[in-house]
Amino acid sequence: MTGASDRSRRVTLMDVARHAGVSRATASLVLRESPLVAEPTRLKVRDAVRELGYVYNRGAASLRMRRSHTVGLVISGLANPFFADFIEGVERELRPAGYVAFLANTFDDPERQGMLIRTLLEHQIDGMLIVAAAGSSAEIGVPPEAVDIPYVLATRPVPGVAASYVGTDNRAGARMAVDHLLGHGARRIAYFGGPEDGAARMERQAAVAERLAESESDLDPAWTVPSPVSTTDGQHVARALVSSSAPPDAVIAHSDAIAFGVMRSLRDAGIEVGTRCRVVGFDDVEQARAWSPSLTSVSVKAATLGGRAAQMLLERIRAPEIPPESLVLEPQLVVRESCGCGRDS
Amino acid sequence: MTGASDRSRRVTLMDVARHAGVSRATASLVLRESPLVAEPTRLKVRDAVRELGYVYNRGAASLRMRRSHTVGLVISGLANPFFADFIEGVERELRPAGYVAFLANTFDDPERQGMLIRTLLEHQIDGMLIVAAAGSSAEIGVPPEAVDIPYVLATRPVPGVAASYVGTDNRAGARMAVDHLLGHGARRIAYFGGPEDGAARMERQAAVAERLAESESDLDPAWTVPSPVSTTDGQHVARALVSSSAPPDAVIAHSDAIAFGVMRSLRDAGIEVGTRCRVVGFDDVEQARAWSPSLTSVSVKAATLGGRAAQMLLERIRAPEIPPESLVLEPQLVVRESCGCGRDS
Repeated sequence: MTGASDRSRRVTLMDVARHAGVSRATASLVLRESPLVAEPTRLKVRDAVRELGYVYNRGAASLRMRRSHTVGLVISGLANPFFADFIEGVERELRPAGYVAFLANTFDDPERQGMLIRTLLEHQIDGMLIVAAAGSSAEIGVPPEAVDIPYVLATRPVPGVAASYVGTDNRAGARMAVDHLLGHGARRIAYFGGPEDGAARMERQAAVAERLAESESDLDPAWTVPSPVSTTDGQHVARALVSSSAPPDAVIAHSDAIAFGVMRSLRDAGIEVGTRCRVVGFDDVEQARAWSPSLTSVSVKAATLGGRAAQMLLERIRAPEIPPESLVLEPQLVVRESCGCGRDS
Repeated sequence: MTGASDRSRRVTLMDVARHAGVSRATASLVLRESPLVAEPTRLKVRDAVRELGYVYNRGAASLRMRRSHTVGLVISGLANPFFADFIEGVERELRPAGYVAFLANTFDDPERQGMLIRTLLEHQIDGMLIVAAAGSSAEIGVPPEAVDIPYVLATRPVPGVAASYVGTDNRAGARMAVDHLLGHGARRIAYFGGPEDGAARMERQAAVAERLAESESDLDPAWTVPSPVSTTDGQHVARALVSSSAPPDAVIAHSDAIAFGVMRSLRDAGIEVGTRCRVVGFDDVEQARAWSPSLTSVSVKAATLGGRAAQMLLERIRAPEIPPESLVLEPQLVVRESCGCGRDS
């Protein structure tokens, strides 16, 4: 039980690093076959390993990393049915990999998000998937220097944070919606709802305005009212819109949840959806198919998006040193009744 | 830095317990003002405290308990919009108490639930709120002997598990729905959907059958088809129902999510909702108001239910020794269009 003699002492990674004249971190990267280390350095470390007879124990290395097989899933608001599909996509990838997700709900509040991220970090998670609260930035809500574990941003990029990201081409989605409505003869098109500081909302609204300008129409500022992503809020804000003297002849809603409320307000005002006012949503949530009229929607492929984000996170957990990646999925317009398809004559 | 003399040694809780002739645990309960300790014992401990000059340090006691101010929230399936309201109710109570919830999604799979509960227990949570997966029992899904932290069951009791519980009076809710439909002249009433082994489904269906028997009608077994709680499943299962030669003249759906799908299938079959077939849902989710026709629904007061469950859990965390409590909330029928109100003439 007394200390072993110096000669029989096991060679450590530190010995290898010193012998090769590199840092311990660099030696570790080489042993984990990271592509980040330049070839000459790699060779020096490999030589040191051979000369000292160092044995790299993968099992012990993995134990040292103490993986909990748990990831944090930070969500901006479960009231939006988009997240049911998104989370299902995430879990579908995590499950076969033996990972479990703990969800935390920020209610689109960046301060609360910062607190939740710090709390998750205290609970031994291996990585994080973040749908950032509107208004998040490098300063508020996502403390990048504090997040010392792999993480991926999903659906909403965060200004100033160069992290891995999976999202949708919001501009392309908005253009699809405008073009389809223009094709139906709509000319007074509103872009409606969504969180005030939301990056997705700003991208989509800008693309709608651009496309309308190209067709010599304007996006009336009165028709770009922000709102939280919920049916009740959509219904409430739409009331003022539809009771104006010159209401729009088409509405692109920031999300299906908002579109459901807009459709109800239109109906209550005696404005038939699909003829006098056409409605297109975003997200293509489960209930869009069943609603009356069924909702035409820009599918952002929520489940696929969640699945790809989870894959990217699992890859980062396996190889934290790989540089941030960005994956932007193409949206798809799913045509149903609310745009007027099958109703025009 | 050497040991202090015996005389100056601080009096410990163990000293108090020995002096009073009780266990350390009992002495601790008395100091925490637990109502569980009988008056004579309480007095003996209080006397010992006074005689020995013991100082009870609440701050240190709380530190010793090492609270993480995090609770686990185990949910059967986020596809059901009921949970958006439920979780909001939970968070509304947790937030001012300085608590954060980590959600885990079981997809109504008791095995997965057991795994998630074990994982949560490994992550330093102070308590758990469980909406048990259908088919959970003392043997499967909720390992009560393994759960050594305070927990509360919500909305679904678990057979054989005597834990604190907050739920709704399912039988009363079902009776309200039947009585309202009978009042509209409906005679062929179906109870539709819900998880196969779900306790709530069984309670409601039994109450519907009883009430119908009292009014000399039967609940046709063909009209009691189970289904997962989702709009797509509701729509799918309702198709067979509405295409039968003698369809029901009213449907009570196990949840609003299912009712939305049922209404769509009725519409697709050319059966007008509210006249030829009346529909009542359960849950009164946000979108019930906005749907066309708006959905009459038995409100189980999801947000209140979540809030009360969270309060009960916080109380148990503060005083884990209090015996299990049961709180059953009265549901309320929220009358809208789908039952035919405002349409009968």
